[in-house]
Amino acid sequence: MTGGHGSESHASGRIAESFGRQTLMALFGATLDRVAKGEVDIRLPYRPDLCQQHGFLHAGVVTAIVDSACGYAALTTMPDGVGVLSVEFKINLLAPAAGDEFIARGRVVRAGRTVTVCTGEVVARQNGAEKPIALMQATMMTVRGRDEVVG
Amino acid sequence: MTGGHGSESHASGRIAESFGRQTLMALFGATLDRVAKGEVDIRLPYRPDLCQQHGFLHAGVVTAIVDSACGYAALTTMPDGVGVLSVEFKINLLAPAAGDEFIARGRVVRAGRTVTVCTGEVVARQNGAEKPIALMQATMMTVRGRDEVVG
Amino acid sequence: MTGGHGSESHASGRIAESFGRQTLMALFGATLDRVAKGEVDIRLPYRPDLCQQHGFLHAGVVTAIVDSACGYAALTTMPDGVGVLSVEFKINLLAPAAGDEFIARGRVVRAGRTVTVCTGEVVARQNGAEKPIALMQATMMTVRGRDEVVG
Amino acid sequence: MTGGHGSESHASGRIAESFGRQTLMALFGATLDRVAKGEVDIRLPYRPDLCQQHGFLHAGVVTAIVDSACGYAALTTMPDGVGVLSVEFKINLLAPAAGDEFIARGRVVRAGRTVTVCTGEVVARQNGAEKPIALMQATMMTVRGRDEVVG
Repeated sequence: MTGGHGSESHASGRIAESFGRQTLMALFGATLDRVAKGEVDIRLPYRPDLCQQHGFLHAGVVTAIVDSACGYAALTTMPDGVGVLSVEFKINLLAPAAGDEFIARGRVVRAGRTVTVCTGEVVARQNGAEKPIALMQATMMTVRGRDEVVG
Repeated sequence: MTGGHGSESHASGRIAESFGRQTLMALFGATLDRVAKGEVDIRLPYRPDLCQQHGFLHAGVVTAIVDSACGYAALTTMPDGVGVLSVEFKINLLAPAAGDEFIARGRVVRAGRTVTVCTGEVVARQNGAEKPIALMQATMMTVRGRDEVVG
Repeated sequence: MTGGHGSESHASGRIAESFGRQTLMALFGATLDRVAKGEVDIRLPYRPDLCQQHGFLHAGVVTAIVDSACGYAALTTMPDGVGVLSVEFKINLLAPAAGDEFIARGRVVRAGRTVTVCTGEVVARQNGAEKPIALMQATMMTVRGRDEVVG
Repeated sequence: MTGGHGSESHASGRIAESFGRQTLMALFGATLDRVAKGEVDIRLPYRPDLCQQHGFLHAGVVTAIVDSACGYAALTTMPDGVGVLSVEFKINLLAPAAGDEFIARGRVVRAGRTVTVCTGEVVARQNGAEKPIALMQATMMTVRGRDEVVG
């Protein structure tokens, strides 16, 4: 995530601060790759301890990084001082999650006062090639006035 | 999961063997709690390193345990020698995932030759009380004739 | 839908009045079959002009009746004077929609101030037997302060 | 839908023939607007008898046209002689369905031997402007060897 000036930089800082509090992302070794208005990417290198029974990345890990990417994409469109929670999401697993690293991309489709709709995708990179492995459609909610739910 | 004799025991053994290969479940500290035909429960004690930014269990963790519970519930209805893969699922997060431990319950609604539909729920336990925190509807697929996808 | 006294009757009347304004249900020949707190059933006799290309009821018709059943189930848990809108839903088609008549059942799983989660199912009846053909998981929203969105 | 020569024309003819058997589309007054490999558009003029209680197009109608668009988009990628069935779909309603006419666009994201994943959107047109009102993510299945399920 490159730095910047003014509001873009402020947005990045706010997302980075919240992402830093997601202990699961640290456990996975996932990092924030890119933050722009309505767009957040998260990067995860493959690790053998994040797998399901056939040695592919577990669907729960694929889901975790793209849910976080969608949630933070939504947060970039929300006012300061509010929190974001996932209401629900649906994900299609397009191909077994095999690769050297994975990029989850969250994008805002429609930002509302209370409800924000996002789409997300996860791609696997291997030997320089990129392959889509998952597609998400998610509903995020703006949470106001709850001190324990900010960011 | 209690032992047993005959086909029930065989089914349990098959699920336990596959579950034991899910490295993510070991990383999380999740265990197989119950296996019956069309029904699998997975238990996860709370851990502060599995959280999102507000200190609740991350939606990806909630999803991981209930996806595994649904997948294994589906596998109990499939013939020996095949594999199960998640085609897609949708999950509603009903309440923030706060609690001492979490139980994910996967149930088969309709078992087909290729496609099996499951519902799942996750409950949080705290001070002896149980509260629903997530509801899943999932589509699983039977995979035949691929040696790397068994169990 | 049987009559009644007091608040049960009031709830039924409110749902029936709103259902009566759904011109699509009249076009389909669908009727309100049962209203209770958090539970609404809608009945639809088979008609050959509601089909897809193989002669089964079109998935859009199956969806329409169970979306309405879920929406009205949610409305029974909301205060007077508000409106209900579908935020999103997911439906699995479990079997081809063949039968003499179809019953859609909407049930509230969790009623919140803004967001209400429902499950729905559709069964087909033929020769006295009942068979599940669809399963829905839906998110409904309470709409306040918009005069054009009441009921 | 414009005519053509060779395989493009054959594909269009096959979709048009199957669409012509969807009695629900005739009841709604919906027409096939465009057919290309992996892409199908369906057009529906507004009609007051297709509405929910607030006078907006019913979510079931919105779903019907975009489910058909996704199913036929999937069918364009399948071999001759097979049938297509919707396994499941999820739809977000982005805005109330108000407008003079509606266009549903189905697109194939990944075509597999058995399972094909599509995305769909519905836009409303009013006074020359176009507004997105719904977003779908759908799973379609190729059905082989069943004479009653072709097209």
